[in-house]
Amino acid sequence: MTSAPKRVSDFSAWYNALVVRAGLAENASVRGCMVIKPYGYAIWESLQTIFDRAFKETGHVNGYFPLLIPKSYLSKEAGHVAGFAKECAVVTHYRLKMAEDGQGVVVDPAAKLEEELIVRPTSEAVIWSTYKNWIQSYRDLPILLNQWCNVVRWEMRTRLFLRTTEFLWQEGHTAHATQEEAEKEVLQMLHLYERIVRDYIAIPLIKGIKTESERFAGAETTYTIEALMQDGKALQAGTAHYLGQRFAKAFEVTFTNQAGIRDYVWGTSWGITTRLMGALIMIHSDDDGLVLPPKIAPIQVVMVPIYKTEHERTAVIAQLAALQKQLNSQGVRVKLDDRDTRKPGYKFAEYEEKGVPIRVALGPLDLQNHTVELARRDTKEKCTIPMGDLSQQVADWLEMIQAHIYERALSLQQQRTLLVDDYATFKKLMATKGGFLLAHWDGTTETEAKIKAETKATIRCIPLDGDRTPGYCIYSGKPSKRRVVFAQAY
Amino acid sequence: MTSAPKRVSDFSAWYNALVVRAGLAENASVRGCMVIKPYGYAIWESLQTIFDRAFKETGHVNGYFPLLIPKSYLSKEAGHVAGFAKECAVVTHYRLKMAEDGQGVVVDPAAKLEEELIVRPTSEAVIWSTYKNWIQSYRDLPILLNQWCNVVRWEMRTRLFLRTTEFLWQEGHTAHATQEEAEKEVLQMLHLYERIVRDYIAIPLIKGIKTESERFAGAETTYTIEALMQDGKALQAGTAHYLGQRFAKAFEVTFTNQAGIRDYVWGTSWGITTRLMGALIMIHSDDDGLVLPPKIAPIQVVMVPIYKTEHERTAVIAQLAALQKQLNSQGVRVKLDDRDTRKPGYKFAEYEEKGVPIRVALGPLDLQNHTVELARRDTKEKCTIPMGDLSQQVADWLEMIQAHIYERALSLQQQRTLLVDDYATFKKLMATKGGFLLAHWDGTTETEAKIKAETKATIRCIPLDGDRTPGYCIYSGKPSKRRVVFAQAY
Repeated sequence: MTSAPKRVSDFSAWYNALVVRAGLAENASVRGCMVIKPYGYAIWESLQTIFDRAFKETGHVNGYFPLLIPKSYLSKEAGHVAGFAKECAVVTHYRLKMAEDGQGVVVDPAAKLEEELIVRPTSEAVIWSTYKNWIQSYRDLPILLNQWCNVVRWEMRTRLFLRTTEFLWQEGHTAHATQEEAEKEVLQMLHLYERIVRDYIAIPLIKGIKTESERFAGAETTYTIEALMQDGKALQAGTAHYLGQRFAKAFEVTFTNQAGIRDYVWGTSWGITTRLMGALIMIHSDDDGLVLPPKIAPIQVVMVPIYKTEHERTAVIAQLAALQKQLNSQGVRVKLDDRDTRKPGYKFAEYEEKGVPIRVALGPLDLQNHTVELARRDTKEKCTIPMGDLSQQVADWLEMIQAHIYERALSLQQQRTLLVDDYATFKKLMATKGGFLLAHWDGTTETEAKIKAETKATIRCIPLDGDRTPGYCIYSGKPSKRRVVFAQAY
Repeated sequence: MTSAPKRVSDFSAWYNALVVRAGLAENASVRGCMVIKPYGYAIWESLQTIFDRAFKETGHVNGYFPLLIPKSYLSKEAGHVAGFAKECAVVTHYRLKMAEDGQGVVVDPAAKLEEELIVRPTSEAVIWSTYKNWIQSYRDLPILLNQWCNVVRWEMRTRLFLRTTEFLWQEGHTAHATQEEAEKEVLQMLHLYERIVRDYIAIPLIKGIKTESERFAGAETTYTIEALMQDGKALQAGTAHYLGQRFAKAFEVTFTNQAGIRDYVWGTSWGITTRLMGALIMIHSDDDGLVLPPKIAPIQVVMVPIYKTEHERTAVIAQLAALQKQLNSQGVRVKLDDRDTRKPGYKFAEYEEKGVPIRVALGPLDLQNHTVELARRDTKEKCTIPMGDLSQQVADWLEMIQAHIYERALSLQQQRTLLVDDYATFKKLMATKGGFLLAHWDGTTETEAKIKAETKATIRCIPLDGDRTPGYCIYSGKPSKRRVVFAQAY
C-alpha cells in the first residue's frame, strides 16, 4: 500500500487507484463504460434510498420510459438536439446472423431499421412526447414524475464515475399549469439536492445559475450545485432545469386552464448521477483510501477478531457477535469479518481503504479485561474502552465523524474561495491552487470563452446567495452586475 | 365502464384494456416498448423491495455492468449466441450530425464503430468476461451478485408487460468453487422465487425443469416456476439456470481450488422480470379491473369522503385524516383521496379499476353515527362498522383478502390441472379450456415439436414434485419415465 499514489503528487492517479483499490468500480472492457462493483453499488444504493425518499415526501412518483428514442424525436427541440447530437449511441439494426464462415456473428443487413433509434442521453424528448397524451386539462396537472435509469452519452475522454459513456442517474420531469408553479418546483428540487448532499454526503456547496454557455440544452434556466474537490477543481454535483414552455411547444403539449383557455404546459427537469460518487470520493478521502460519511456508509462499523488459537477464535467471535447484535439493535450497520483466510493486519488495511468509519478490534486480552479497541477512520484516532461503553461511543463517534468530515470539507472550500480582482492573480491561482474564484464578469459569452481558453476556468455559476455588489469585469474591464464563481472543473 | 371487454368473451382484449385503464402501462411510441406508468411502477417497486431483501438475506449483493456488449463477446458461448442473435438491437454509430438541408439530424457516417455493440439481451457474456479478472483462487469465491436493470430483446409480437422489446428485470450471476455449491444455489433461488411469488403475489406455481428445447441458451439445466392464467394459458414467472462450467470455459475463468489444482468456475444465473406484472394481472383481476394482493398493493386502503356542503367536506375529511393516521401507525398504506374535482362515484370506480384491496367511505351520516363504510375489492362485500372497529377490521380483511385471492387462484389451477392419457382428449382440451395437462412424453425433442405444431402446447416443465410413475407417451406410445406438464403459454 505504500506504493499507492499520493494526493499531493498526482491527484488524478490517486483517484483512479483509490476507486479500484476500495472496490468501488473498474473500467469495463467496453470502451468508456464502467463496472460498478458491489461495494461501490452499495454506496449508490444508500444515496438512491435517501434521494428517493425525499422525492416521495415532496409528492413525486416514479415511472419508467423507453431506453430507445426515435431519432426524429430528438430533433423536435432545436437547442436540445444541438446539445446532444454529437454524443449519441445509435441503434441501426435489430438482428445478428451467423457469419458465412461459421465464425461468430455479423450484423444482418436485412434487419436495418427504417428510422434509427438513439440510446437515451436524457429523456425529455420521449417523456414530453408521452405527456402530450396524458395532459388535457389543469386537472391532469401537475405531473411530478421521476425515473431511475441508465443513460448513454458518447464521451471521448472518460473517467470512473466522473465521466463515463454509460452512467446511472435519476431524472425528474415535471409538468405544471403555471409558470410560478414550475419555478417553485425547480427551486424546491435545487434546495432538496443541496440539503441531502450537505447533510448526508457531507459536501458543502455553492448554489447558483448556469451561464448561457453552460446551460442544459433545451432549458431556459439551469440551476446547479457546485462542489470543490481537494485539488481545487470544481464538480457539478446536480442540476435542476427550468424548461419554460419549450418542450411543451416542441411536442405540442397543451392544456385547458381553469379559465378555460388553451395554453402550453410549463416544465422542469432535474437530476443527480453516479458522478456524485466521484465527488464524494475526491472530497473526503486521503492517501490511505476512501473516507465515508457514516450516514451513507454501507458498513458503519467493522469488527475484526484477533486470535491465535482456535479456542481464542471461537471466544472472540462469540463476543463480537454479541456486540454486533447490540449495535444492530440501535440501528448501526455492522459487519463482523470472521474470515479465517485473512490476517487482522490485512483486514485493517482493507477497511481503511474502504473508508469504514469505525473499526472495532477485539482479542483475548480484551476478553479478559472486558474492553474493545476502537479506531476512527477520519482522524485515525484510537482508544480502548470498556465493552459496556461501546454503544454510546459508537453513537457519539458516528455523529462526530459525520460532522467532522463536513467541517473539514467546508474549511477547505472556504480557504479556497477567494475574491479576485485582477486577471494576473486569477491566472496564477488557476494555474496553481485552483479553487472557487469570485470575480467580476461582463456578462458576455465572448469574455467567458476567452477566460476559458486562457485559464481552463469556466463560470461554475452565478451564485444565488452572497455578495451582489457591482464592479468591473476582471478580463474586459467592462461593468459587471455582480461577482460570479469561476473554477476549473471536472 | 360497462363497455370494457369481458374476460369470457375476449381475454386478450380484456387484459390490454385493463392494463391501460388501471394506469399500469401503455404502449410507447417506440415500437414494442412500453411506458410503465406511476401506478404500475409502484407495484414493480413493491416487488423489487421484497425480492431485493430476500436476495440480501441469502448473502447476495448488487452491482452494475455495462448496457453495451461488444458483439464478439456474445459469440464466445456457442449456444448463447445462437439463442440471442436473432433479437439483438445493434449500436453501429456513436454520433449524429445536422442534416445538410438543415432539417433534423442524420447518423454521421464518420462515426462508425469498429466493432458493433449489442444492447444487452442478458448479461452472462459481459459478466463472465469481468469475473475472469476477479477470480484467482477459491478465496475469491463464491461471488453472489445480482443486478437490477433493463434489457432489450427485439420481439416481433409484443404485449404490455408480457413481451416487450425492452423490459426491466433482475439477473443474478453467481460463481462457485464446486458443482455441488452451484447446484445448491440454483435450487435455493428457485425456492426463494416460489416462496415470494406464492406468499406475496398470491400466485400458486408448479416448479420444474425445462426440456432441452425450452432451456436458456447457454445453460445446462433451466429450472422454472410456471403459473396458470385465468384463460387456461401458462406463464413462466421466473427461471434459474445451472450453467455448469460453460461460461467459465467460454471466458477462460479458472481458479486454484483448495487442493491447489486449477479448475473452471461453476456458475448460475436467475431472473424475474416485469412479466410478473402480467402474471399478477391475468391471474387475479376481474371484469371491473385489477385485483391486488394486499402485501404488494401500493395503496392498501383508499378513503373516499362523501359530502355536499363545504362544511361537511371539512368535517368528513378531518375525520378521515384522523383514521388515516391511525391506520398508518399500524403500518397500513392508506390514501385519502380529497380531490374536490371528482365525485365519489368516479373515485369508487377508479380504485376498483386500480385493485385497491379495501375502500373506506365516510359521509355526514357516518359522522353522526360514528361509523364507516368498508368495501372489499376481491369479493365486493360491503359493511358499515363502528369507527372504533376500523383498525381491527382492516387488519383482518387485509389478511383475508391475501389468503382468499391465493386460494381462488389455487382452486382454479387445481381444477385445470388434469391427468390426460389419450391424445384426442389432450387436443380437445388444448383447443378449448387449456390448463396444465399432465401427460406422458417419450423424452424426445421430435415428439415435443410435433405436439407443439398440432396443439400449440409446449412442455412447461418436468415437475420437481408429484407423481413419478412411468407410463407411455401420449403421442408416440413409447415408454415414458414420468408425466410432464403441458400447456399453451404466453
